[in-house]
Amino acid sequence: MEIKQGEKLLFVGDSITDCGRDRPLGEGTGDSLGSGYVSYVDALLQSVYPDRSIRVVNKGISGNTVRDLEARWHADVVEQSPDWLVLMIGINDVWRQFSKPYQTESHIHSEEYEETIYRLINEVSGAKLVLMTPFYIEPNNQDRMRQRMDEYGKIMQDIASETNALFIDTQKAFEPLLSCLHPSAIAQDRVHPNARGHMVLTKAFLTKVGFQWS
Amino acid sequence: MEIKQGEKLLFVGDSITDCGRDRPLGEGTGDSLGSGYVSYVDALLQSVYPDRSIRVVNKGISGNTVRDLEARWHADVVEQSPDWLVLMIGINDVWRQFSKPYQTESHIHSEEYEETIYRLINEVSGAKLVLMTPFYIEPNNQDRMRQRMDEYGKIMQDIASETNALFIDTQKAFEPLLSCLHPSAIAQDRVHPNARGHMVLTKAFLTKVGFQWS
Amino acid sequence: MEIKQGEKLLFVGDSITDCGRDRPLGEGTGDSLGSGYVSYVDALLQSVYPDRSIRVVNKGISGNTVRDLEARWHADVVEQSPDWLVLMIGINDVWRQFSKPYQTESHIHSEEYEETIYRLINEVSGAKLVLMTPFYIEPNNQDRMRQRMDEYGKIMQDIASETNALFIDTQKAFEPLLSCLHPSAIAQDRVHPNARGHMVLTKAFLTKVGFQWS
Amino acid sequence: MEIKQGEKLLFVGDSITDCGRDRPLGEGTGDSLGSGYVSYVDALLQSVYPDRSIRVVNKGISGNTVRDLEARWHADVVEQSPDWLVLMIGINDVWRQFSKPYQTESHIHSEEYEETIYRLINEVSGAKLVLMTPFYIEPNNQDRMRQRMDEYGKIMQDIASETNALFIDTQKAFEPLLSCLHPSAIAQDRVHPNARGHMVLTKAFLTKVGFQWS
Amino acid sequence: MEIKQGEKLLFVGDSITDCGRDRPLGEGTGDSLGSGYVSYVDALLQSVYPDRSIRVVNKGISGNTVRDLEARWHADVVEQSPDWLVLMIGINDVWRQFSKPYQTESHIHSEEYEETIYRLINEVSGAKLVLMTPFYIEPNNQDRMRQRMDEYGKIMQDIASETNALFIDTQKAFEPLLSCLHPSAIAQDRVHPNARGHMVLTKAFLTKVGFQWS
Amino acid sequence: MEIKQGEKLLFVGDSITDCGRDRPLGEGTGDSLGSGYVSYVDALLQSVYPDRSIRVVNKGISGNTVRDLEARWHADVVEQSPDWLVLMIGINDVWRQFSKPYQTESHIHSEEYEETIYRLINEVSGAKLVLMTPFYIEPNNQDRMRQRMDEYGKIMQDIASETNALFIDTQKAFEPLLSCLHPSAIAQDRVHPNARGHMVLTKAFLTKVGFQWS
Amino acid sequence: MEIKQGEKLLFVGDSITDCGRDRPLGEGTGDSLGSGYVSYVDALLQSVYPDRSIRVVNKGISGNTVRDLEARWHADVVEQSPDWLVLMIGINDVWRQFSKPYQTESHIHSEEYEETIYRLINEVSGAKLVLMTPFYIEPNNQDRMRQRMDEYGKIMQDIASETNALFIDTQKAFEPLLSCLHPSAIAQDRVHPNARGHMVLTKAFLTKVGFQWS
Amino acid sequence: MEIKQGEKLLFVGDSITDCGRDRPLGEGTGDSLGSGYVSYVDALLQSVYPDRSIRVVNKGISGNTVRDLEARWHADVVEQSPDWLVLMIGINDVWRQFSKPYQTESHIHSEEYEETIYRLINEVSGAKLVLMTPFYIEPNNQDRMRQRMDEYGKIMQDIASETNALFIDTQKAFEPLLSCLHPSAIAQDRVHPNARGHMVLTKAFLTKVGFQWS
Repeated sequence: MEIKQGEKLLFVGDSITDCGRDRPLGEGTGDSLGSGYVSYVDALLQSVYPDRSIRVVNKGISGNTVRDLEARWHADVVEQSPDWLVLMIGINDVWRQFSKPYQTESHIHSEEYEETIYRLINEVSGAKLVLMTPFYIEPNNQDRMRQRMDEYGKIMQDIASETNALFIDTQKAFEPLLSCLHPSAIAQDRVHPNARGHMVLTKAFLTKVGFQWS
Repeated sequence: MEIKQGEKLLFVGDSITDCGRDRPLGEGTGDSLGSGYVSYVDALLQSVYPDRSIRVVNKGISGNTVRDLEARWHADVVEQSPDWLVLMIGINDVWRQFSKPYQTESHIHSEEYEETIYRLINEVSGAKLVLMTPFYIEPNNQDRMRQRMDEYGKIMQDIASETNALFIDTQKAFEPLLSCLHPSAIAQDRVHPNARGHMVLTKAFLTKVGFQWS
Repeated sequence: MEIKQGEKLLFVGDSITDCGRDRPLGEGTGDSLGSGYVSYVDALLQSVYPDRSIRVVNKGISGNTVRDLEARWHADVVEQSPDWLVLMIGINDVWRQFSKPYQTESHIHSEEYEETIYRLINEVSGAKLVLMTPFYIEPNNQDRMRQRMDEYGKIMQDIASETNALFIDTQKAFEPLLSCLHPSAIAQDRVHPNARGHMVLTKAFLTKVGFQWS
Repeated sequence: MEIKQGEKLLFVGDSITDCGRDRPLGEGTGDSLGSGYVSYVDALLQSVYPDRSIRVVNKGISGNTVRDLEARWHADVVEQSPDWLVLMIGINDVWRQFSKPYQTESHIHSEEYEETIYRLINEVSGAKLVLMTPFYIEPNNQDRMRQRMDEYGKIMQDIASETNALFIDTQKAFEPLLSCLHPSAIAQDRVHPNARGHMVLTKAFLTKVGFQWS
Repeated sequence: MEIKQGEKLLFVGDSITDCGRDRPLGEGTGDSLGSGYVSYVDALLQSVYPDRSIRVVNKGISGNTVRDLEARWHADVVEQSPDWLVLMIGINDVWRQFSKPYQTESHIHSEEYEETIYRLINEVSGAKLVLMTPFYIEPNNQDRMRQRMDEYGKIMQDIASETNALFIDTQKAFEPLLSCLHPSAIAQDRVHPNARGHMVLTKAFLTKVGFQWS
Repeated sequence: MEIKQGEKLLFVGDSITDCGRDRPLGEGTGDSLGSGYVSYVDALLQSVYPDRSIRVVNKGISGNTVRDLEARWHADVVEQSPDWLVLMIGINDVWRQFSKPYQTESHIHSEEYEETIYRLINEVSGAKLVLMTPFYIEPNNQDRMRQRMDEYGKIMQDIASETNALFIDTQKAFEPLLSCLHPSAIAQDRVHPNARGHMVLTKAFLTKVGFQWS
Repeated sequence: MEIKQGEKLLFVGDSITDCGRDRPLGEGTGDSLGSGYVSYVDALLQSVYPDRSIRVVNKGISGNTVRDLEARWHADVVEQSPDWLVLMIGINDVWRQFSKPYQTESHIHSEEYEETIYRLINEVSGAKLVLMTPFYIEPNNQDRMRQRMDEYGKIMQDIASETNALFIDTQKAFEPLLSCLHPSAIAQDRVHPNARGHMVLTKAFLTKVGFQWS
Repeated sequence: MEIKQGEKLLFVGDSITDCGRDRPLGEGTGDSLGSGYVSYVDALLQSVYPDRSIRVVNKGISGNTVRDLEARWHADVVEQSPDWLVLMIGINDVWRQFSKPYQTESHIHSEEYEETIYRLINEVSGAKLVLMTPFYIEPNNQDRMRQRMDEYGKIMQDIASETNALFIDTQKAFEPLLSCLHPSAIAQDRVHPNARGHMVLTKAFLTKVGFQWS
C-alpha cells in the first residue's frame, strides 16, 4: 500500500467528510473522526495495517463550498503539514443552484470552483494529493443537477490530471449500487448517504491507494 | 461468497452487536443497524454485492447474557426465520463476575453458559449458524478476566465443532491490533471497541463467509 | 362552491396530511390542523367563506399505509360522520418497496392497496368523497418509484370513477412547478414538500370543489 | 400580475411578519420564511407563477416598532436592494401604550411613527413600495386601542398617498372574518392571528398586486 | 372573620383556580397551591390570621367545564369533606362556543351548566358554599362572548340565591380595574389574568368572608 | 395613601426582592416583577388604587450584598430617577459569615455594611426612601446568625433615623407568624420564604405607606 | 471488626439513606449506592478491608416514613436476607408535623412510629440489627421540632434496648460539628446534610461496628 | 495532626482532583468540592477536627497535564496563597501517549514533566508541599502504560525528595485493593476510580498528614 509508516492523512471537505467529527481537532480515540467514510478509512487502515501508525485527521465542515474552504485553508490544512491531502468538495457549490435558485449570491459557478481549487492546491506543497469528485446519488443522468455535478466532477478530474494528483470518480463508484438499489435506499435527499454509501466511498479511496484487504 | 441471493442474516448478542440499533425492528434504511460491526458488515455486503439483495437484521441488546437471550429467543430469533444466524455472547456473563463480584446472582457460570447456548441452537433449525467468541481487549493473558473469557471462548469453539457451525475466534482476531496499540487506544473499558475494533470484527466475519473485497 | 353551510370535511392520510396536527382530535383554534395543506385549505375556506361555518378535521398520521388506515378507520372516520371525506394515501405503500427493498413484509402491493380502499369506502356512506392520488416529486417519469406511484395513482383514479368520487391527480398538479424548479427546491426527499408544494395540493383541492378566490 | 420575472420582494415588520423566519438571512428552501403570511405569499407566488422566479425575503423581527426598524434599516433593507418593499409596522408602537401604560419611554407616539416612516422610505429609492396598516383584531371600534390603531392606520394611508405607494388596509381586510367569528377564534390576544388571519393578510396583499388565482 | 379555627377551604374550578398547583394533592408547603388567587388567599389568611390554622386546598384543573367537574367531583370534592367549598366555573363552558364555534360537542349550553351545578351542590352537604361567577376581562358589554358570560354569571347568582350560598360577582369586581386599564394590561387573552387580576379575585373573596386587613 | 398619582417605586435588594423578575428591565405586563413581595405590592396597588397609575420597578438580584449593590447602583437606581426607593439588603452579607465561615473574603462586616449604605443613599436625592431590615426566619433569638442579623437590622434602623427614611422592621413583622408556625412551614432554609412569608413583607410595606384595604 | 467475610449489609431508610441510589437494585459498581453515607461506608469497608468481600445494599427511598417502609418491607428487606440490617427512619414522620401542620393525615405520631418499627423488626430474623435515630441539625434543643425528633430518637433507643440491637445516636454524633459550625454550613434545610454531615454518620456507624482505620 | 488551626489546603490536578467541583471558585457549602477524594478529605477533616476551621479549595481541571497547569498556575495557585499545596498530576501526560499514539504533539515526555513541576514548585514558597504520584489501576506491572506511569511516579518521588515535600505513592496505595478486586470493579477505564478508589486516595493523604480517626 502506498501510505507509509507514520504518514498523516488529512481529509477536508463538506458534510460528507464531516459527519459529526470532533471540533476543532478532528481526531482522537473514540468518535473523533465522525461517523462517515473518514472513520471507515481510518478503521480499515488501523485494523489491517496496525503496524504502520498512520494518522488520520478529519477537517470536513458541513455545508462548505470552495469559498468556505479558502477562508480556513491556512489554519486547517497548510498548518497541519499533512503527508496526504484528500479533498472532496463541490456538492454544495452545485446543490444551492437548484435548491435555492433565487439566492444567486450563494451559488459557486464553475469558474470560481476551478480557480479556487487551483489556488488551494498551490498553497500546499510536499503533500501527496488525492482529489475526489463531488457526486449526486441520482441515476438519471439527464437530471439537471446530476449534469451540473458531472460537469464539476470533470473539472476536478482535469485538475487532477494537471497536478498529477490521484483521482477518484465517486460518481462512477456509486454506479453498481445504483443499478441495484433505488436512491431512496441509499440517501433520502440523494446527497447524504447512509453507511452503504459511505462504504462505497471508502472502498474507492482505499483501492486507489493500493490497500490490500487480505 | 457463501451468502446467497436474497438470504437473511440475523445478528444477535449484547452491546457489541446492539450499538444503538432501532427498536424493535433492528433494520431499515438509515441508522437502523446501529453504529457497530453489524452496520459495517451490511455496508460492505451492500456496496460490494449490491445485486445479491442480502437482508441484515440486528437483534443485539446491550447488557445481555445468555440468560437474557433465552427469554427473548423465540420472538427475536426463531420467529424471524433467518437463513444465517450469527451469535456473539458471553462478555457480560463473564464481566459481572469481576466488576460486581458480590452480586453473585448476576453471574453466569460456564455450565449455564454452555447449556443455554445448546438449548438456543436446538430451537433454530434450517439456519446456517455462525458462532463468535466473546472477547476481552486485554493483551495480558494472565489477567483473570481474560483467562475466564478465553475459557468461555473455548466453550463456544467446542459448541461450534459439535454443531458444525462456522466459528470465529474474535479474541485471536484482535491480536494484530493489540500487538501495535495499547488497549486504551481501542476500548476505554477494554470491552466496547471504537471503530477500529468493530472493523476487526467485521473483517473476521466477512473473511469467514468468503467475502471478496475486490 | 360545493361545500355548503355547516358541512364537516375530514381529511385522512399519511404524513402529507398529518404535518404535526393535534392528537387525538385533529382540530381546534391554533395549530391544531398541522402546518400542511389541510391547514391551508381551512385558512382559505374560513377567510374567503367565513359565513359558511365549515368545519375541517385532520386525521392524518405520518407513515400510514392503507393497512394502517384500515385499523383505525372506524374510530377516526366512520364515527366522525363527515359530510366530506378526503382521502390521500399510498405514498408509504410504494416508498417502502424502494427504500426498504428487503423488508418485504412492509410492502403494500397494488392488489392490497386497491382492495383495502374499496373496503374503506364501503364503510362510509352519506359522505361526499374526494380521492387524491399519492405523488412523487420526481420529474423523471422513467424513475422506477415514480412509475410505481403513477400505477397506484391510476388505481385511485379508477376507484374514483367506479364510486363517482371527486378525483384529484396530485402528480399532475405538481407538473408546472416541476417544470420550473428542481425537486430539491420543493422536497428534500422528493416526498415531503415545503410550503410551495403544500400550496399546490391546496389549490388542486380547492379548485376541484369550486372555490372562488375573488 | 405586477410582480415581474426575477424580482425580489422584501417584507419587513414585526412579529406578524417574522413568525419564526430564519436568522439572519430570512430566506431559503424549507421553513426559512417562517410560518406566517410571508410564507403563504411565497408559496402562492411559486405555485401559481413558478416560471417568474420571484425571490421573497423575510426581514420581520418580533416586537419591533418603527424605532427598532430605523436601527437596522440600512443593513436589513437598503443593502438588500429589493425590487419590492413591503412594510407593515405599528402594532407594537400602539400596543405598549395600553399593555404597559406606565413604561412611557417604550411608547411610540404618532409623530414619531409618522416621521420615522418618512425617513425610512426616503432611504429606499427604486423599489416599488407597498404599505400595510397595522391592525387590531377587535371588532369594537369604540375600543381605545382599536381607535388608536385606526389612527396609525390612517397615518400609513396618508403616507402611501403622499409617496404613491400601494396601500393595503389590513384592518378592513379582517372585517368579513370578524363579522362571522369572535376574535378568540382568530387571535387569542387579538394581535397574533392563526392561519386563518394570516390568509386574510395574504389575500389582501396578493389581490393588491394583481395575483390571478386561476 | 367567618372562617373559623381549623376549618378547611377547598377551591375547585378551571385554570384560574389551577395556576400550576401540585398534583394530585393541591396543597403543601412551597408552591403547592399554584401561583394564582388561591395562593394569595392562603398567604393572606396565614399571615394575618396565623393562629386560626386554616387549611387551604386547591383542586382546580385547567380547561375544566362543569362536565369535567362532574366526572371528578366525588374524588376531588366530596371525599375531601371541606368546611368551605369555593366554586368558580364556566369560563371554558362559554369560551369554546366562540373560540371553537364548529366543535359544537365541546360547548356547554346554559341548561347543562345550570343543571350540573345543582347536581354537584346537592352532593355536598355540611360545607359552607361560596359561588363565584365566571368572568371575561372585556369592558365592552356588547361583546357577544361577554354577554354570554354575563348570562352564565346570572345563572350562578340565581343558584347562590336558591341555595343560600355566598355569592361573588367576579365580573363586577374587575370593573374598577377595567375603568383604568386596557384589558391587554391585565390579561393577554382576556381570560387568564396576571397578578393584578388575581389580586382582584383575592380581594373579592376575602371581603365576602369578612377578612380584616388590619 | 402616601404614594401619589403617577409615582414610580423602585425596589432594590437581593433574592427576596428578585424572585425571578425580568432582566434587565424588571417591569412589564406579565411575570416581569417576579413572584415575590414586589409582585404582590404591585398587584395590590393596581387592584385597589387602579386610578393612581403607580409604576413599580424591581431591581433585585439574587445573592447580592451591599458590595454588589454599589457596583450597579448608578445604572440600576440613580439613572432610574424613582420617586420612591425601597431598599432591603443584608441577608447575604450576614449569611455567608455562617454558611461559608472560611471564605472570609466573601463576608461583609458591619462597618462596610453601614458605610456602603450611607454612600448609596447619598447618591440618591429627591426620592422618598424606605429602608427595610434584613431578616432571618429563626424564632430563637439566641441563634448566632439571628443575633448578627438583628445587629444589621439595628444598623438599618439607625440609618433610617439619621436620614428620615421610612423604616420597616421585617424581623418583627414575622413574629406573629413564627409564634404559630414552625420555620419549616415558612422557609425551608429560613431565608427564602414561601407565599405566606412574602405576604408578611407585603403587608408590612403597604401598612407603612398608608395603604387602605377597603 | 464485627462485619465478617462475605456478609451482606442492607441499609434502609429515607432520603438520608437514598441520596440518588440506583433503582431498583441499590447496588453495583459505579454510583449505585448514591452519594451519601451508605456510599462512604462501602468505600471505607472496601478500601480498608478489601479481603472481606463485604456486600453493601442501599434500599433508602426519599420521603419515606415508617408507613412507607411497611408497604415495601417484604420485597425490599425480608426477601433480601441481609446479614446486617441498618435502619434509620423517622425524620419525615416528624418533619411533616411542622412543615405541613394542617395536613394531619400525613403525620406519623409516636405510637404508630413505635408499633410499626416493632412489627418490621419482628419480620426479620437472623440479621444483626443496627438502629439509628432520626436527627435534626438544629443546635437549639428548645426548638419544638428538635424536641419531637429527640422524642422519636428516644423511642428508637428503647427499641434497640428491647431487641438487643446495636444503637447509634446520630443526633449526638452531630454535636461536635454543631458546636463549631452554624447549621447553615452543614444542611441548608437542617435535614439534608452535605458531605461533612454524611461523614459524621459514616464515622458513627463504622465506630459502632468496630472498624479500624489503621 | 499536622494541619493546624485556620490553615488553607489547596488541591490542584486533573480529573481525579476535579470530579465536578464548582467553577471558578472550587469551594463553598454544598457540592462545591466535587464528588471525589478532595470532598472526602474535607468531610473527614471537618467532621473529626471541626474546631480547626480548616479551609479546603479544589482547583482540579479534568484532562490537565503539567503543560495546562503551568498556564493557570499563577491565577489558580500562587494568588491563592495556600498553607498547604497538594499536587497530583501526570495521568494525562502519560495516558495520551497510549490512547492517542499518533497525536504526538499532545504527549508530555518525562523531561518536560519533570522540568515543569520544578518550575511550578519554585513559584510557590511558604506552602507546605504534598506531592502525589499519578497512578494507573492496572495490576500487571508489565503493562507498558503502567510501566510509564511508574516511571513518572518515580520522578515525582525524586522531586519530593529534592524539595523536602511530603510524598504519597498512590500507585502503592491501590495495591491492597487490587490484590482483592479486579480493576473493572474499581475503575472502568483503569483511570477514573469509583468511591472505593477515591477513599484509597483519601486514606493515603490523611495518613500522611497524621490524621487521627479516633
